[in-house]
Amino acid sequence: MSQGYTVAVVGATGAVGQKIIEKLVERNFPYSKLKLLASKRSAGKEVEVNGLTYKLEEATPESFEGVDIAFFSAGGAISKLLAKEAVSRGAIVVDNTSAFRMDKDTPLVVPEVNKQALHAHQGIIANPNCSTIQMVAALEPIRKAYGLSKVIVSTYQAVSGAGAAAIEELTTQSEAINEKNPNPSILPVKSAEKHYPIAGNVIPQIDVFDEDGFTLEEHKMMNETKKIMTLPQLSIAATCVRVPVVTGHSESVYIEIDKEDVTVDELKQLLSNTKGITLQDAPEQQLYPMPYFVEDEDDVFVGRIRKDPSNNNGFHMWIVSDNLLKGAALNSIQIAEALIEERILKEV
Amino acid sequence: MSQGYTVAVVGATGAVGQKIIEKLVERNFPYSKLKLLASKRSAGKEVEVNGLTYKLEEATPESFEGVDIAFFSAGGAISKLLAKEAVSRGAIVVDNTSAFRMDKDTPLVVPEVNKQALHAHQGIIANPNCSTIQMVAALEPIRKAYGLSKVIVSTYQAVSGAGAAAIEELTTQSEAINEKNPNPSILPVKSAEKHYPIAGNVIPQIDVFDEDGFTLEEHKMMNETKKIMTLPQLSIAATCVRVPVVTGHSESVYIEIDKEDVTVDELKQLLSNTKGITLQDAPEQQLYPMPYFVEDEDDVFVGRIRKDPSNNNGFHMWIVSDNLLKGAALNSIQIAEALIEERILKEV
Repeated sequence: MSQGYTVAVVGATGAVGQKIIEKLVERNFPYSKLKLLASKRSAGKEVEVNGLTYKLEEATPESFEGVDIAFFSAGGAISKLLAKEAVSRGAIVVDNTSAFRMDKDTPLVVPEVNKQALHAHQGIIANPNCSTIQMVAALEPIRKAYGLSKVIVSTYQAVSGAGAAAIEELTTQSEAINEKNPNPSILPVKSAEKHYPIAGNVIPQIDVFDEDGFTLEEHKMMNETKKIMTLPQLSIAATCVRVPVVTGHSESVYIEIDKEDVTVDELKQLLSNTKGITLQDAPEQQLYPMPYFVEDEDDVFVGRIRKDPSNNNGFHMWIVSDNLLKGAALNSIQIAEALIEERILKEV
Repeated sequence: MSQGYTVAVVGATGAVGQKIIEKLVERNFPYSKLKLLASKRSAGKEVEVNGLTYKLEEATPESFEGVDIAFFSAGGAISKLLAKEAVSRGAIVVDNTSAFRMDKDTPLVVPEVNKQALHAHQGIIANPNCSTIQMVAALEPIRKAYGLSKVIVSTYQAVSGAGAAAIEELTTQSEAINEKNPNPSILPVKSAEKHYPIAGNVIPQIDVFDEDGFTLEEHKMMNETKKIMTLPQLSIAATCVRVPVVTGHSESVYIEIDKEDVTVDELKQLLSNTKGITLQDAPEQQLYPMPYFVEDEDDVFVGRIRKDPSNNNGFHMWIVSDNLLKGAALNSIQIAEALIEERILKEV
């Protein structure tokens, strides 16, 4: 264990932080020291990781002394406060929040799409929005083979993206689904004025609204996709909707490609040969991706690929993934692994 | 009560049949006699309607003697068996099933869209698919004002469209949402080989699959929309998805109109002046339609209207309605009311 990196996890008690720790162990990430950082309130608690007991420490600027790589998933405010402190102490930060994603100096990375962008980093690497990651992972092999000019996406997003309190809210309301007396206080946006029930409902609002009528979540999907795929001219629009599902985001995606006369079978072939993608597309066997079955799965699942009835270059598809894994924790670890592969993180 | 029509309701015990009876009373439909028809199994049971007790009768060809108008909502097989028997005995049939919808001799009617089509009837009028009705009701005023060339829709459909057993399945699974042991037997399609849980899940299959990878539900939405709006060249594609909601279908709809430079405010103005549509579109107040709040409402609710970021003729919107009312029972009664208004049903 002496050979390895010193790794910090900021937000170690959160849903994503816990998954990051799980994946570090599961994937044998070469760490020699693990610092689990959290809020002052959680400091002192003990957590067991791979048979060893760790004491949670309060995240402060000094916590990052000697840290090689720091995973941040404690909310945008904490990232804004501490990420640059970590960088100034020599760490590379992989940030799960939206704090730096659209900064032009911050690479926004899904490794199988734009690993090369890592080389331009200035200390912080941003992990994209969960609903963006799974979509670009599925669209990149298509773009590479056939070009991509248009995307229209409607999402069916799970509540776990909104944290443990949102999961609790869905569970409590579900168990009392016939009572219609839900007293919501978390969804759609905890800090917003109005809250709506999620069990037996769908809510067409994730994050707050911008002046143009799109939500910030929808803007994230549109802007981040253009940045990650380096397609500034891409025609893209998103409608983001919360559904009563605990974990697993689903997306109904329409795309237009540049090449003519591509067949559904060619697209299926392409995706089934792509690492990180599982093609689940056999309608005659009722085989298609569903969130219920992707929990704890690393891959992005794609199915229901159909040619548009009136556009030879248009296709429809259905993309599902575990929003806490490929949508967050797993992609963060994959970024760190790519930093090692690309020799951006110094050898230990 | 002697002045009025003799009305038959076939499938009087079903979810839609019961709503038809409710709406007949609520809207003071001019009936003098009501025949409640059902399966042999239900025959003899007593039902109270507007203070009077009715005995359910088994639906047979002879049941339609003397009937002026018959509402069918007992499944496609019963409609195929008995609708023409009813017509041959002088009744006009309003059929809620898909049995005759695409027959070229059968008008497929949403009264506010194509009431005039009723005049060509040959005894049977078809009531469209629930997800189609609410969409065309919202799109028709737009088509009239600005033309309509393209529609891409992703649905979020409630389980009540699949009957009482599907509601029971959702409720039972919801109450035990943490147990993950759901034993599904109804959804997505009762007669299909595989069944999947609906609580905590979304299922991208409604009805069975066609060879082109679209489901029959998706084909219904595409074909029926073209027929009702008399737009055979319309570019339209649908992805139909079941969500864990009891009642209320939601739709994320992208449209392209013919006219240039139309603003979101103009579209809002247009829809807010349309009878049968409630505009719920004030993002700054978190006001948008949700299925939880449309149950038992007659209107089609529209919100989240946004201009497409890369197409001046493109708009996104969110359409929600009670699938058992405007999507089924209410539209059937409105068809019958239009038959009277248009003097197609003889005066009594």
